[in-house]
Amino acid sequence: MPQAPETLEGWYSLHLFYAVDWASLRLIPEDERQSMIESLQSFLTKHASARENNTGDHALYNITGQKADILLWVLRPEMKQLNEIENELNKLRIMDFLIPTYSFVSVIELGNYLAGKSDEDPYENPRIKPRLYPELPQSDYICFYPMDKRRNETYNWYMLPLEDRQKLMYEHGKIGRQYAGKIKQFITSSVGLDDFEWGVTLFADDPLQFKKIVYDMRFDETTARYGEFGSFYVGTILKTDDLDQFFAE
Amino acid sequence: MPQAPETLEGWYSLHLFYAVDWASLRLIPEDERQSMIESLQSFLTKHASARENNTGDHALYNITGQKADILLWVLRPEMKQLNEIENELNKLRIMDFLIPTYSFVSVIELGNYLAGKSDEDPYENPRIKPRLYPELPQSDYICFYPMDKRRNETYNWYMLPLEDRQKLMYEHGKIGRQYAGKIKQFITSSVGLDDFEWGVTLFADDPLQFKKIVYDMRFDETTARYGEFGSFYVGTILKTDDLDQFFAE
Amino acid sequence: MPQAPETLEGWYSLHLFYAVDWASLRLIPEDERQSMIESLQSFLTKHASARENNTGDHALYNITGQKADILLWVLRPEMKQLNEIENELNKLRIMDFLIPTYSFVSVIELGNYLAGKSDEDPYENPRIKPRLYPELPQSDYICFYPMDKRRNETYNWYMLPLEDRQKLMYEHGKIGRQYAGKIKQFITSSVGLDDFEWGVTLFADDPLQFKKIVYDMRFDETTARYGEFGSFYVGTILKTDDLDQFFAE
Amino acid sequence: MPQAPETLEGWYSLHLFYAVDWASLRLIPEDERQSMIESLQSFLTKHASARENNTGDHALYNITGQKADILLWVLRPEMKQLNEIENELNKLRIMDFLIPTYSFVSVIELGNYLAGKSDEDPYENPRIKPRLYPELPQSDYICFYPMDKRRNETYNWYMLPLEDRQKLMYEHGKIGRQYAGKIKQFITSSVGLDDFEWGVTLFADDPLQFKKIVYDMRFDETTARYGEFGSFYVGTILKTDDLDQFFAE
Amino acid sequence: MPQAPETLEGWYSLHLFYAVDWASLRLIPEDERQSMIESLQSFLTKHASARENNTGDHALYNITGQKADILLWVLRPEMKQLNEIENELNKLRIMDFLIPTYSFVSVIELGNYLAGKSDEDPYENPRIKPRLYPELPQSDYICFYPMDKRRNETYNWYMLPLEDRQKLMYEHGKIGRQYAGKIKQFITSSVGLDDFEWGVTLFADDPLQFKKIVYDMRFDETTARYGEFGSFYVGTILKTDDLDQFFAE
Repeated sequence: MPQAPETLEGWYSLHLFYAVDWASLRLIPEDERQSMIESLQSFLTKHASARENNTGDHALYNITGQKADILLWVLRPEMKQLNEIENELNKLRIMDFLIPTYSFVSVIELGNYLAGKSDEDPYENPRIKPRLYPELPQSDYICFYPMDKRRNETYNWYMLPLEDRQKLMYEHGKIGRQYAGKIKQFITSSVGLDDFEWGVTLFADDPLQFKKIVYDMRFDETTARYGEFGSFYVGTILKTDDLDQFFAE
Repeated sequence: MPQAPETLEGWYSLHLFYAVDWASLRLIPEDERQSMIESLQSFLTKHASARENNTGDHALYNITGQKADILLWVLRPEMKQLNEIENELNKLRIMDFLIPTYSFVSVIELGNYLAGKSDEDPYENPRIKPRLYPELPQSDYICFYPMDKRRNETYNWYMLPLEDRQKLMYEHGKIGRQYAGKIKQFITSSVGLDDFEWGVTLFADDPLQFKKIVYDMRFDETTARYGEFGSFYVGTILKTDDLDQFFAE
Repeated sequence: MPQAPETLEGWYSLHLFYAVDWASLRLIPEDERQSMIESLQSFLTKHASARENNTGDHALYNITGQKADILLWVLRPEMKQLNEIENELNKLRIMDFLIPTYSFVSVIELGNYLAGKSDEDPYENPRIKPRLYPELPQSDYICFYPMDKRRNETYNWYMLPLEDRQKLMYEHGKIGRQYAGKIKQFITSSVGLDDFEWGVTLFADDPLQFKKIVYDMRFDETTARYGEFGSFYVGTILKTDDLDQFFAE
Repeated sequence: MPQAPETLEGWYSLHLFYAVDWASLRLIPEDERQSMIESLQSFLTKHASARENNTGDHALYNITGQKADILLWVLRPEMKQLNEIENELNKLRIMDFLIPTYSFVSVIELGNYLAGKSDEDPYENPRIKPRLYPELPQSDYICFYPMDKRRNETYNWYMLPLEDRQKLMYEHGKIGRQYAGKIKQFITSSVGLDDFEWGVTLFADDPLQFKKIVYDMRFDETTARYGEFGSFYVGTILKTDDLDQFFAE
Repeated sequence: MPQAPETLEGWYSLHLFYAVDWASLRLIPEDERQSMIESLQSFLTKHASARENNTGDHALYNITGQKADILLWVLRPEMKQLNEIENELNKLRIMDFLIPTYSFVSVIELGNYLAGKSDEDPYENPRIKPRLYPELPQSDYICFYPMDKRRNETYNWYMLPLEDRQKLMYEHGKIGRQYAGKIKQFITSSVGLDDFEWGVTLFADDPLQFKKIVYDMRFDETTARYGEFGSFYVGTILKTDDLDQFFAE
């Protein structure tokens, strides 16, 4: 039986996508709308403290195109905290105008395919720890997509011997490393938690890099033979202070 | 012709998933909302007596992410009782604010792939009986997903000889047993009753175990070659007494 | 070119599935609701006369789970009568609260794969006639699912020689005959009339028999290699007289 | 590279499918409804003149089952005329109660797979011209379905040599010719215009013929190996004069 | 590992598709509707200046059939400008009556499969530059469809050696060149940006050319073996000045 790779898990993760119901929002008097926006800003500011305490983080982006208008990505040490935040958010009045369009439940994962064996606790390794419990970059652009490894009749990732998967992942990782400095990448596992197996969240100041890395990777065997993709979402950063303007009439 | 395995069947099963319509619920005056919640609590308390009489059980969880907000899982000896409960529930006023998002009709099943032959009535076997007519754990977290066995052109589960399926299921079961004490698993069959062939419902106090068991199993041949999955739902427990707080403004 | 089997066709068939909009129905004053229910009951009673005249039949069931609440199955000698009944139904006021969720247009079909040749008119054969123009059983439970025969690259039902299909159907039929007395089965063809090729409607007093027959058949080659299934619907009988109670607040 | 067959193109084609919103229509006072129906009748009568001038035609049917209630099929020499008619229709008040459910944009096409070479202009051939610019039959029943030719890994229609496709289409056509007098068939191409590659529209006074021809064809290699089908719609004729009764309370 | 081709990227691209909610629009008083249309016209006229400054362009078409009524295609140098335009558009009151039905986020791409090597900067090549930063034709008809290259088990575009892909693309391109003068074609890449890999936008004064080019190409190996298509949208030009008439009652 093929062997599962070792993995390290960090914070639990919740991607929430919403479309704005502009037609209904337009009917709300200016002062009421202002008050709703302030409540959302207070909510975001309160939860931003998690970042300072290194007990989680969040990011807010304005999605391009009509699959969604807003992406809120939240990271927390416990899954029940994600439920609490989602429930707290649902009780804000602005949510009357934010229609859920997609969500993704997962946990930050570092595949240990390439790990050397050692006695140290990897969770205390100073190169690993900040990737399991990250401080999210405030890049201009975000890209998110869920993915699976294929289990086809001829090409079945999960039937490959561990050493073959290690070699494929090594080649795959080499492409990723060429984008160091241009793209920051976070992998979250949704195996057993959501419909796809992984989510990939990329941050960059130049959105062309999303196209370049995904296209380059499509030609490496790991992706070409075994990658299966869900929807791709891209967006531009939406700062808490700019929410007034974003929602303004 | 390949031989169907023997199976044992227990209670009928109904998983009901709902999204809360928070925007409409917000418009309801506090005392009215309170009264609706109390009716739901009375309904749940009344039906909790089935657990005491060992004539069924139910579980209520708050689903993480936007596929649903609530999962109510109900078990009963007769299928018509599931209809009655569903109809009774539909007449509660709180249901105006619970939008159905998914449901799953099935029956608790124990595959007898690995059973030794004996003269005893398996339905009276004290190790089997509580698995057919179970008392559900009150774990912090739940995980539900429906699944099929694949009937592909090369790899077709239903064309395998019985002994091959027995061997594959034995290996598959070994992984499950490694999670004894961490996860409690219930298999319900929906063959002829709903769109998938089985539903898997897992309970755990640590939701990372859901990810670990599903990922481990993905590398065993039964799953890698023959498993086909529907949507995965995870959630945290929602106690009847906490419904006030859950629905509170 | 593979030869199409001979078939016999009986009444045209229309399966109509509806979800009840309980939230809106709740807003209707008691006497108005009562009057709407009575109109539906009159409609059903009027059309029940077709059963007495052997000019059609209908059945009404309460579907379990959230894919639908109600299934009305109607059989008539001419397709235009199905349109007339559908249009007449749509004009009942209770229909404001019944949301269409699925429908299936077909015609009762008896495959003649296994027929011996003879000079008699099969439409006058006393064993065949009541299966083409049936009186529906009033069983406690119903099960409906649509299906196709696969046309895959290796296994393509429609490229098999007639004698191979005859042999496969003979084995397939043997399983069905084991359920005589427990299940009554009706096959309707939707080739050229709806999206799937056939609909299977089963009646039983014990719903576990639906699970058993469908699971047993999944291991015979006809189904394992060539069967492709749509959604499965199960339900409990809903008598015209019980509609008051079903719709009651 | 396999060679594309020659084709002849006639009128542009638009199939429009609508569900009636009976619940809302019921709220409209009788005289208002009457006036809306008369406007629809005037619209249809006005455009019926195209038939007399041989500058197009249209057909109106009442679809059986819940995929749609109404099909309006329109043929015109220019595509922009289809937009104009669609926009004109959208401005009729009755359209408030007709919910679009599906549409199909295409152009009448005669495949020239079997054409002998000659010097004549095929567009002036008296056997071809009326099939490119047809007068639609007023049959009791209609059947519409969209289809593709498969491009699978083993069986790929578009990789077959022209002569193989010619032979397959010749056999396929032989079945069609057996239904001469019972079924009138129109093929429209939606390649580059809509999601499927072709639409098939059949007219017959006996709807059983739809089932028979489609089932017969499923066993010929062109269809069995290479045909891929969308949804099937059947309906009964809806005469302009009968619209009062159709929409009446 | 197969090598990714060189590509050149131009403007970012956003295709926005909307259905008109005619039923609601009909309720708006004439002067209010007129004012909403004028605001849309002002918006379009303001952004038309990008065309004059060669800092972007846009096109507006009336889609045929019921997948959408309107397509607005916008090109800009930076992705965040697409968000700004989309947000500005969403705040126009006419948007209350335009229901989003589909969108496509991409970037203009020229595949360099066939490029000769040279020292020149291709972005300054006068034959290339106007294709990366184009002035859109004002043709009578538009056609848009998204597409993927297949990654099947036998035929996987991304596992082909670069020289094989070059040869296939050369043959593919030859067909395209036969339509020079009849069709103007724009390729945008959505790899990493949206669900498909490319979008194809065609302009022509004769819509039959869309059918002809797509059908011709279906028989070349690049498309027959490796092309996978999304929905096809066709439409007729909608000039800013004609919006009054388009939206008029």
